[in-house]
Amino acid sequence: VTRVLVTGASGFVGSPAVTALLAGGHEVHAASSRPHDADTAISWHAADLLQPQAAGQLIEAVRPEWLLHMAWYAEHGRFWDSPLNLEWVEATLRLMRAFIAAGGRRAVLAGTCAEYAWDREIYSEHDAALAPATLYGAAKNSTRALTEALAAEAGIDVAWGRLFFLYGPGEAQTRLVPSVVRALLCGEPAPVTEGDQVRDFMHVADAGAAFAALLASDVRGAVNIASGTGVAVRQLVELLGAATGRGELIQVGALAGRADEPASLIADVGRLRDEVGFAPRHALAEGIADTVAWWRERLAA
Amino acid sequence: VTRVLVTGASGFVGSPAVTALLAGGHEVHAASSRPHDADTAISWHAADLLQPQAAGQLIEAVRPEWLLHMAWYAEHGRFWDSPLNLEWVEATLRLMRAFIAAGGRRAVLAGTCAEYAWDREIYSEHDAALAPATLYGAAKNSTRALTEALAAEAGIDVAWGRLFFLYGPGEAQTRLVPSVVRALLCGEPAPVTEGDQVRDFMHVADAGAAFAALLASDVRGAVNIASGTGVAVRQLVELLGAATGRGELIQVGALAGRADEPASLIADVGRLRDEVGFAPRHALAEGIADTVAWWRERLAA
Repeated sequence: VTRVLVTGASGFVGSPAVTALLAGGHEVHAASSRPHDADTAISWHAADLLQPQAAGQLIEAVRPEWLLHMAWYAEHGRFWDSPLNLEWVEATLRLMRAFIAAGGRRAVLAGTCAEYAWDREIYSEHDAALAPATLYGAAKNSTRALTEALAAEAGIDVAWGRLFFLYGPGEAQTRLVPSVVRALLCGEPAPVTEGDQVRDFMHVADAGAAFAALLASDVRGAVNIASGTGVAVRQLVELLGAATGRGELIQVGALAGRADEPASLIADVGRLRDEVGFAPRHALAEGIADTVAWWRERLAA
Repeated sequence: VTRVLVTGASGFVGSPAVTALLAGGHEVHAASSRPHDADTAISWHAADLLQPQAAGQLIEAVRPEWLLHMAWYAEHGRFWDSPLNLEWVEATLRLMRAFIAAGGRRAVLAGTCAEYAWDREIYSEHDAALAPATLYGAAKNSTRALTEALAAEAGIDVAWGRLFFLYGPGEAQTRLVPSVVRALLCGEPAPVTEGDQVRDFMHVADAGAAFAALLASDVRGAVNIASGTGVAVRQLVELLGAATGRGELIQVGALAGRADEPASLIADVGRLRDEVGFAPRHALAEGIADTVAWWRERLAA
């Protein structure tokens, strides 16, 4: 039994990561700045890591052997450019220093495909250039570089899971999938863009399980956490139409696309598959159907 | 008259940078964690920027239009690998956020040739790869990336002066030039390595003046701050022998060199010369003679 601290544990990816770690038999300590339900299987710790003393106090309270750091600023529409990204760099460095000082052995942190220069179709950890175009991407990429340098110095293991695009239960309501699903389930029109851009979508439960698997492995460095399969956003939206039975409400092209959107963002998942040994469990159509069912239940309640 | 805040103002490079800014007619506010002499031309501010509240309080007190951020951990023999580098990343981000929030317009920060992958002889800002091999280099490189992303977002100007190798009055006693000069002036043997490695040495007064010139320019991004001329370390040591008249005390090869030392580190100074319009004033032999004279005076006192 390994004592694991998960930050951002009540978040979209943190939450299924906690579930996967519990299933793996670990002693899970979950930290969150938000209120959470009591759960006898998990030790919850309230912590706002942006407060200068919080990381030290949290680490002192838990003294984790492993750390899964998922907490970050993620407000839809704002996180790309927000100076809060820099506060999260600082918070993450404080957390890593405290973790190392307390004898921590292995840490996995959440990265992003926005660390890559968006200049190709398929992104491999081995050869895709790291040249983030956004403050969010720069903050994550710098945090990775600093954490890796610190870990090498301190002699601990660090891996970095680079998330691409996600969907699934618990996603913020204003994001694409929930907003379309909710409109369709309520019988309202759902205006969307042409949706030609191809993205790599992974079910969030798979993403959480992939982080748990990465943490339990001895793989170091950056690992794409994604499905490895590209789908046009329009196709994803059509799956939402099919799963709700209200596809006629979708208004393709009613919203203007963004000119600076890259045409394709697909992960090379060779490291995740072959080195971590992880395979996702949810095919897209089935995962979308689950997600629609989750929203249907929620809206009915 | 521009109100300028200089951090690390009592440091090796900060000190001559303050001198150059005063000569340029600016209103100079100098911040340092160390005690300093009273000086009617400069407003001194005591600040330990590693304290979480210090940056905000300092910026609030000064409300600078320009910022020259030279403060960092620099203890000889320790700074390459120290976790304190990460605390300086955090401190620098706090400082930049406070500077921007208070209406600051232009900032220049101190970088290092250790940001580059040491894989060539001459390093240009335009095409040399950024792949630091040390925690210090990673911390500086990440700070640059984050500061540039933040500045682009906030609409302020940022430049980044990449220092190579320095010599001159005020250098820490344990470093190469002072330790050899002091030995020779005291009539003691000075054991040194073979000194085949070629480095770009700049007089610290020139480095300070170059930072002041960069701050007063409208150049953005990374600029090498160096002489553009390579000299073998052995040749530099021979100049010390000549300037002291005690060259016979130098024991070349008595110390083992480091196996991982790159053969050559020379700056391409095209940006500094052509875009900033700066030319160093000290030729090496003359600058070394000045430095020896400074130590002679100090040892006699």
